[in-house]
Amino acid sequence: MRKTIISLFTVLMFFGAKAQDSNNNQLIIQEQGVFAVGGTTVEAEGTYNPDNPKTEGQTLHVDHATVQYQIPSNANKLPLIFWHGFGQTARTWQTTADGREGFQTIFLRKNYPVYLIDQPRRGQGGRSPQETTIPATPNEQYWLGMFRIAKGDDYMPNVQFDKSPETLNQFYRQISPDLGTIDFEVNTDAVSALFDKIGNGVLVTHSHSGGQGWITAIKNQNIKAIVSYEPGSGFVFPQGEAPPTMPSAGGPLEAVSISKEDFLILTKIPIIIYYGDFIPETPSEFYGTDNWRTRLAMAKLFVETINKYGGDAKVVHLPEIGIKGNTHFPMSDLNNKEIAKLMADWLTEKGLDKTSNSETSMNEEIKTLSKEM
Amino acid sequence: MRKTIISLFTVLMFFGAKAQDSNNNQLIIQEQGVFAVGGTTVEAEGTYNPDNPKTEGQTLHVDHATVQYQIPSNANKLPLIFWHGFGQTARTWQTTADGREGFQTIFLRKNYPVYLIDQPRRGQGGRSPQETTIPATPNEQYWLGMFRIAKGDDYMPNVQFDKSPETLNQFYRQISPDLGTIDFEVNTDAVSALFDKIGNGVLVTHSHSGGQGWITAIKNQNIKAIVSYEPGSGFVFPQGEAPPTMPSAGGPLEAVSISKEDFLILTKIPIIIYYGDFIPETPSEFYGTDNWRTRLAMAKLFVETINKYGGDAKVVHLPEIGIKGNTHFPMSDLNNKEIAKLMADWLTEKGLDKTSNSETSMNEEIKTLSKEM
Repeated sequence: MRKTIISLFTVLMFFGAKAQDSNNNQLIIQEQGVFAVGGTTVEAEGTYNPDNPKTEGQTLHVDHATVQYQIPSNANKLPLIFWHGFGQTARTWQTTADGREGFQTIFLRKNYPVYLIDQPRRGQGGRSPQETTIPATPNEQYWLGMFRIAKGDDYMPNVQFDKSPETLNQFYRQISPDLGTIDFEVNTDAVSALFDKIGNGVLVTHSHSGGQGWITAIKNQNIKAIVSYEPGSGFVFPQGEAPPTMPSAGGPLEAVSISKEDFLILTKIPIIIYYGDFIPETPSEFYGTDNWRTRLAMAKLFVETINKYGGDAKVVHLPEIGIKGNTHFPMSDLNNKEIAKLMADWLTEKGLDKTSNSETSMNEEIKTLSKEM
Repeated sequence: MRKTIISLFTVLMFFGAKAQDSNNNQLIIQEQGVFAVGGTTVEAEGTYNPDNPKTEGQTLHVDHATVQYQIPSNANKLPLIFWHGFGQTARTWQTTADGREGFQTIFLRKNYPVYLIDQPRRGQGGRSPQETTIPATPNEQYWLGMFRIAKGDDYMPNVQFDKSPETLNQFYRQISPDLGTIDFEVNTDAVSALFDKIGNGVLVTHSHSGGQGWITAIKNQNIKAIVSYEPGSGFVFPQGEAPPTMPSAGGPLEAVSISKEDFLILTKIPIIIYYGDFIPETPSEFYGTDNWRTRLAMAKLFVETINKYGGDAKVVHLPEIGIKGNTHFPMSDLNNKEIAKLMADWLTEKGLDKTSNSETSMNEEIKTLSKEM
């Protein structure tokens, strides 16, 4: 009988762990899959003749996003929708370059439904309506600088990036080419179509998708909050309130003016922005760090403007709260669990981690069962 | 007490279901992730200067495959490695165009570890060492014919393909462009590197990956069996035994001659090949069906030759065993669960579904627990 009870407790712990078994790391997935969303269709004039196939009358489906999703058991109500940055795909949020779990799996374990976007014309995001040439120019060391991982052969001091050659190999190989011109209208339309399909959710952006994220939230009010890692450009301001262009060794940063009416939509949702380490306070000569000096500065002005109009926005500069060594990819840095916890705590603070009723009733059942024993 | 026992049985059923809870469809995943494998690196001559970045001294990592994997709880010993066909990605094996589970999830439920490949220069397979132009030519109706789904506006009679417009939309949007020239050497090297990394497994190919699959199995003896859906070209024969080129309305089909020594490697592993419906026995004028007449004919010769040398190969033409209406994509057709069961039964017949020891001991524990109650 003693063995029965011990085993029963093992089973209960397993059952009670929801999306994660804390003992053995198992994930319990209710549903998973992939779909295309949004996009347009090009149609060649004429009539298609299957007995003599030519371009005439044929179609080309283009400019959709491709979205992979997983819904854990006893899922939270609001899903997290992860949108990659420049030269990246859904891969940004999956396994880290050094082989650990990325935000996809970390947040599944926190019971969030997780959607990973390949934006139009990137990765599995598919085809573009215009013929496109993909260059094959070696440029990886440039990006390693821009991402504040290394300057040339020298890693940033105490950087949260594993220094084994295989990690760097994996990191480089997650870079994915553009399958067409990057078009903010096309991208934000596709991501807005995703929110039309799945309903309310929290948008999580990174770098180049940061600016597109603000625009998408203005387009689609199913976006109930935004978490933005290191937004790189496209900060929006009400007409007449945009700061002047900010020069940096990485290039100039221009603010984007939009109507005040549109801007005010961003004051209706909680927004949090995170920046990592190695961002100088005063101008530096290295493009890779100086580039982020202006971005952080403009993010602060963006947040001030939102809050001035009654919004709820915040910039967290990680070193200022004692979290050091983060690159442009905090979600996959060595301390990514700590970074995820910050985000999870913020979601909780904003009441965005509510569970569905079904979980409550299941927890009740387990409690009853435990008591009866 | 009665409630306790009922609840306990519910919990046990849940626990005993291994990778799947038959009650509520949950998947229990032990580990999941993504990685790049194989590939080469281009290095521009010169030295990189981070203070004045130019192409000199920079690298470009190219020609890897990108592989997503999931390992279910109590996994079978041998994983299944799924390799897509022409114009496709891992998407082939995921959710079907009409929104049902694909082979990825179906075989996870059968306790197989599942690896999904994006081959080099496709989808998230990343960059190519040569500049490449992606055309934007409408061509989808041509492919719908070649895939034996429809001839022009007319679906094949009783085709196992859902006729709603959204299904066709999703199907078209899973087509993905080439990010470089298709190179069999590059592709088979990357997939061989995958088997070096993960060890023994069963390779599952489709269409264009069929011929590449034979070559990969010759390169890497960690491939312990091959399941091939509608291999489209690249049938290999020992030097001097290749059949003549077969003409069809879809173009000529050429056999590939290899050394007898290499060919004999294919006699050491079980191989099964499936073809769907709408393949005529005698020449037809429609390229979309006639193309597969020669492929099926050559597959039969390929299998005969393997078996002549003591191998274990088989062609299953689905309509001949009473399974009708299948297109070129049996893995995502409306009857894909039946198609999966055929494959699963074959894997069992060949002893390829063995479980690990851990499962046996866990099952024993559950049996003991049940008895004690």
